Amino acid sequence: MKNKLGVAILGATGAVGQRFIQLLEGHPWFYVAEVVGSSRSAGKPYGEMVNWILDDRPSERIQELRVKSLGETLESSLVFSALPKEAALEVEIPLAHSGHVVCTNASAHRMVEDVPLLLPEVNHEHLHLVDFQRKQRNWTTGALVANSNCTTMPVVMSLKPLLPFGIEKINMVSLQAISGAGYPGVASLDILDNIVPFVPSDEEKMQTETLRMLGSLTEVGQVAWLSAKTSASCNRVPVVDGHTVVISVALRSQPTLSEVQSAWENFETPSEILNLPSAPQKMVQYLPQYDRPQTRKDRNAGRGMTTTIGRLRECDLLGYKFVALSHNTIRGAAGCSILNAELMASRGYIQGFNPINETEKQDDTRIHTR
Amino acid sequence: MKNKLGVAILGATGAVGQRFIQLLEGHPWFYVAEVVGSSRSAGKPYGEMVNWILDDRPSERIQELRVKSLGETLESSLVFSALPKEAALEVEIPLAHSGHVVCTNASAHRMVEDVPLLLPEVNHEHLHLVDFQRKQRNWTTGALVANSNCTTMPVVMSLKPLLPFGIEKINMVSLQAISGAGYPGVASLDILDNIVPFVPSDEEKMQTETLRMLGSLTEVGQVAWLSAKTSASCNRVPVVDGHTVVISVALRSQPTLSEVQSAWENFETPSEILNLPSAPQKMVQYLPQYDRPQTRKDRNAGRGMTTTIGRLRECDLLGYKFVALSHNTIRGAAGCSILNAELMASRGYIQGFNPINETEKQDDTRIHTR
Amino acid sequence: MKNKLGVAILGATGAVGQRFIQLLEGHPWFYVAEVVGSSRSAGKPYGEMVNWILDDRPSERIQELRVKSLGETLESSLVFSALPKEAALEVEIPLAHSGHVVCTNASAHRMVEDVPLLLPEVNHEHLHLVDFQRKQRNWTTGALVANSNCTTMPVVMSLKPLLPFGIEKINMVSLQAISGAGYPGVASLDILDNIVPFVPSDEEKMQTETLRMLGSLTEVGQVAWLSAKTSASCNRVPVVDGHTVVISVALRSQPTLSEVQSAWENFETPSEILNLPSAPQKMVQYLPQYDRPQTRKDRNAGRGMTTTIGRLRECDLLGYKFVALSHNTIRGAAGCSILNAELMASRGYIQGFNPINETEKQDDTRIHTR
Amino acid sequence: MKNKLGVAILGATGAVGQRFIQLLEGHPWFYVAEVVGSSRSAGKPYGEMVNWILDDRPSERIQELRVKSLGETLESSLVFSALPKEAALEVEIPLAHSGHVVCTNASAHRMVEDVPLLLPEVNHEHLHLVDFQRKQRNWTTGALVANSNCTTMPVVMSLKPLLPFGIEKINMVSLQAISGAGYPGVASLDILDNIVPFVPSDEEKMQTETLRMLGSLTEVGQVAWLSAKTSASCNRVPVVDGHTVVISVALRSQPTLSEVQSAWENFETPSEILNLPSAPQKMVQYLPQYDRPQTRKDRNAGRGMTTTIGRLRECDLLGYKFVALSHNTIRGAAGCSILNAELMASRGYIQGFNPINETEKQDDTRIHTR
Repeated sequence: MKNKLGVAILGATGAVGQRFIQLLEGHPWFYVAEVVGSSRSAGKPYGEMVNWILDDRPSERIQELRVKSLGETLESSLVFSALPKEAALEVEIPLAHSGHVVCTNASAHRMVEDVPLLLPEVNHEHLHLVDFQRKQRNWTTGALVANSNCTTMPVVMSLKPLLPFGIEKINMVSLQAISGAGYPGVASLDILDNIVPFVPSDEEKMQTETLRMLGSLTEVGQVAWLSAKTSASCNRVPVVDGHTVVISVALRSQPTLSEVQSAWENFETPSEILNLPSAPQKMVQYLPQYDRPQTRKDRNAGRGMTTTIGRLRECDLLGYKFVALSHNTIRGAAGCSILNAELMASRGYIQGFNPINETEKQDDTRIHTR
Repeated sequence: MKNKLGVAILGATGAVGQRFIQLLEGHPWFYVAEVVGSSRSAGKPYGEMVNWILDDRPSERIQELRVKSLGETLESSLVFSALPKEAALEVEIPLAHSGHVVCTNASAHRMVEDVPLLLPEVNHEHLHLVDFQRKQRNWTTGALVANSNCTTMPVVMSLKPLLPFGIEKINMVSLQAISGAGYPGVASLDILDNIVPFVPSDEEKMQTETLRMLGSLTEVGQVAWLSAKTSASCNRVPVVDGHTVVISVALRSQPTLSEVQSAWENFETPSEILNLPSAPQKMVQYLPQYDRPQTRKDRNAGRGMTTTIGRLRECDLLGYKFVALSHNTIRGAAGCSILNAELMASRGYIQGFNPINETEKQDDTRIHTR
Repeated sequence: MKNKLGVAILGATGAVGQRFIQLLEGHPWFYVAEVVGSSRSAGKPYGEMVNWILDDRPSERIQELRVKSLGETLESSLVFSALPKEAALEVEIPLAHSGHVVCTNASAHRMVEDVPLLLPEVNHEHLHLVDFQRKQRNWTTGALVANSNCTTMPVVMSLKPLLPFGIEKINMVSLQAISGAGYPGVASLDILDNIVPFVPSDEEKMQTETLRMLGSLTEVGQVAWLSAKTSASCNRVPVVDGHTVVISVALRSQPTLSEVQSAWENFETPSEILNLPSAPQKMVQYLPQYDRPQTRKDRNAGRGMTTTIGRLRECDLLGYKFVALSHNTIRGAAGCSILNAELMASRGYIQGFNPINETEKQDDTRIHTR
Repeated sequence: MKNKLGVAILGATGAVGQRFIQLLEGHPWFYVAEVVGSSRSAGKPYGEMVNWILDDRPSERIQELRVKSLGETLESSLVFSALPKEAALEVEIPLAHSGHVVCTNASAHRMVEDVPLLLPEVNHEHLHLVDFQRKQRNWTTGALVANSNCTTMPVVMSLKPLLPFGIEKINMVSLQAISGAGYPGVASLDILDNIVPFVPSDEEKMQTETLRMLGSLTEVGQVAWLSAKTSASCNRVPVVDGHTVVISVALRSQPTLSEVQSAWENFETPSEILNLPSAPQKMVQYLPQYDRPQTRKDRNAGRGMTTTIGRLRECDLLGYKFVALSHNTIRGAAGCSILNAELMASRGYIQGFNPINETEKQDDTRIHTR
């Protein structure tokens, strides 16, 4: 692992923490050097303390890592946070203050003005907020960057290519996977043969994060939110992974359906981002079949980093309606945090680490890959 | 079964046909006298030909009934149809023409001008169309009455009490159970750990049937459709029974949320209908909990005949949003057809049958009942 | 509710507690007078404290009952216990000691020598243990009677009619529903698209309780266990209700398959028991179809009190194999406790209560009923 | 694709056919040159005709392949068959007769004396049957090799290391995934919240194939079946992929539990086989946790080619019991056929093709891999 950067994972035994571990196995730039868990786990080997819920096991090396407690000093300059909101509120700012680059999946600081809510293909320019952040807060090496709520992802990814048409109204109805609630999360008696038409606080997050992420950076280091009306209704459904959102949208310039579809098909990821190890070939992929995207069959598109879209058609109320799907713990959580960190590394925000992208990028030429 | 009226079930071995059989067991007015199936089943005992998918078995008497083929003459003056659309197109009009009262769950004739699309609590006055129908078509005892698509039910039931507020726009996103697709219907590989964002032709049905059912009968024997804009998006989800619809609605008079909730709570079923054997105490029931209605836990409200509603809140786009749930094969199919037939019987539309409602009505005082 | 006996439910807010409430609604002899819950719930209305997981709601009267804490004095002479083992260990004996008849579903005292492990159709004679119990313990009105583990039920019910053939070996592999683990119980991430091949302590219970229940009462007030070898393997599967057990059995007298099938078909519940309000027409029902019993379709046989059996065939290892299914929270828990209490009442074990069985018994002539 | 061998897939649009396509993407020796489907699909592009049910999509190249009909001449010397039994009966022998090496997943010829029922780690020596086959049938380049039923796999894989202890009796109770029934296969109404205690003909296959596969090759070119008593009970459960089998076994030499566990842990795949591209590092892996293997979490062990085993403990009836799990469409079907073909290629049975194993083998050092 010479030349690779050791990273720390906060909340490493949880559902998203496990996904961080999984996605960082074999990562060309980063390797997991520190795992941080609850006080119950502290001091014990990760492999013994984790109740692994994914479909593989971490490597022997990872299993033998000693779990650190939240209070302990971290050596890694890059820290990924999969903490619950309350714990995140307590430790993320202090960690950045003490010099760590913190890429967080927690909701705690998403609406703080100088914290970028980053999704590279959508708003990589928001990363400049870190310059303001460092200046304002007197940080030299530290930084705090957040990614959005997992249900917001498919919305902003599918709407980004439509920005030029002028987005005025957005209606969102979600069908969310159980893994979005963490572990133990949803009780099986609440979801087997059942729908729960409520997900705590996700409606508010979708309604606001969407507008902040699609907003533009002003010269004074603020994000001017997109000016559009939004409404979200969230539902929990019995699928393991993958958040589906049924979206209706009003577009000012009233493009034809084929113009909308072309906007998705022609959307290109800037090459700076496309070259990052975790970036998919396509941010969005329009599926022409009449009954897609389907959760189990399409959630792993682009190694779980591509949002699939389908069923674009006219809507008598808002003009356009369609369906979008993202993998909620990959693109919607750990995968996005990692991509954010890769962008920061490639732009030189992580002091002392200069990724020479000589490592072979993982093959992603197949449209979907396992 | 003296004094009871023998009825025939068309499509008796299918998913909805079985629900007819089940709901008519012990019915105070009707008993199943004839079962009609495919030519494959014809001549054989029902119990041998049916692949029973519900959670009880039909009585011995029903199991021993000989299955008739669609061509055979029927003796029952009342016929329930659970036929697929194509077969319904062929036989329902001829059966009515030859004197039978046909209460159909098929979609074939739902949009025919003189065929009422009937849901007693919502539009019992539409039943007068049968007078025009008989006059126009020269029928004396025959009649054809339809009920709506199963996904339309929770929409019209939850919107009926809101009609006085002036309904202008309706957005509907459904989460539909697998039993809505009949048997064998949805392949398990298409729905386990999966969502299918498409249900053939249901979006069109929801968008039009809602307006026809909520319309008013004119003096010249036509239905003036409700004038409102509609948009529907349908999804199949892995639940056995129960269709959930996430509804947003624009109301002209802009009532407060509590006025809307009161409209549901104060809605009263006319006593003529309330006295029918299959009518629930409440057409709609508003659930005050923050996370209801839930499919498995609430679909059987009012013996599967009550639509439960929850999560009323403001919507920045249309003004109001909420969630409604109906049992799709009870209220959404067989149960509604039976209630329609009961209304016809009580109003004297079934010649020679006069239900004296002396039979004790099934207890329905518990809010939900099994 | 005049002439009915008020009863108390311990653990009333839990999964089995709720089933007690549901099954006792409209019971001809008993009504729920007291509900006992955790200290968190004590003093508050039941309807507010319960997270109702069944598919109906308790009556208004029940919802308004004030929850009592475990320490409070109970007025009811009959107490049903749905407590966790530890709590049961603490309070059940003292309650019986202070004069209450306690019918418990907890495992705490199942192996205590003078506590009958009762299932009326199988071993009603074991109820005589209460006479020894009262004598030994100096109790006059109090008593403690247990029912078995929910997975043991389908085993003892299907084996009881085979006792005359001489049972020598029993192999049991279970497929158990999530409701068997209570609420919140099994995490959805552990059971959606998954099997867990382990259920804490159920294998031991099945291996021992089966032998005690099928044993015979000696004159000195002990149960001589059935002498047979047993082996159990337990699995949790993604179904809501209903425990299936794949059973192989060695029978000393080597009957033919049709003799075994006849033993089930000819098994008759003694009329003393058949007349109890909760007793099903048939304790066991053999289903002749090639692919039954099926969990969702057959678990409600006999209002959830009948064990369905199918697929009897030869086994090269033990001689005979078949499949048995019981509803785990009805026959396997609350329903059996209630039937036990009915038997005690009819035999005069509940002081001051003499059920005159004039109330019409619920119709159970249909093979399966909802 | 120079230096790679073009292969044909029979039944390419079905569930197992799709898995062949998926597993052969990027295969170092083989590439899919021909896809053969039903007459309905013939002549059209594969991408249009296939209803892809896996979680990725085939490459553009595969999607553009023209589907051939079963009658057409095939150019590939190596043919994989995912045909239904009847079609396999018709075409597999003629194909081998005309010179093709046929590796089949169909059951049609599994019990033919000179057709090896091959699983390389278990009985690679059975491949010598092909020499007898060619001699007897006068074939020079053609051959027919079968793999077992998907539910038999975890049984033979977990029992192979126990052969030295002397296997006398085997009891098997399966919990099988829906993908084992192909597409459309199991109706969702038959499996959501349900168990079906019957899988057509799988019990017979498990009882016989196990004995043939664990048997030894005689000098006269026959397989002397293992002499043991077997009994199987098969169940369909609501999981997507992965067959679990609860196994009890009687062992003549009565090893201790730790000796049995060591037999699994010390079992080594011969290096000839370990070097094949699709061979996993470990044929079996014993999981020490108290509640494993679990279907969703462990089915992908060793890229779906490793059988995981857990819960070894004493059994009062047969002596030993444990649980084994295999991925049914990877190791249980397509993956095993491919491994069989790799063994044939490396031993020179495919004329004109000499795999020089210079291609880097896929990394499999992580215990489980996606």
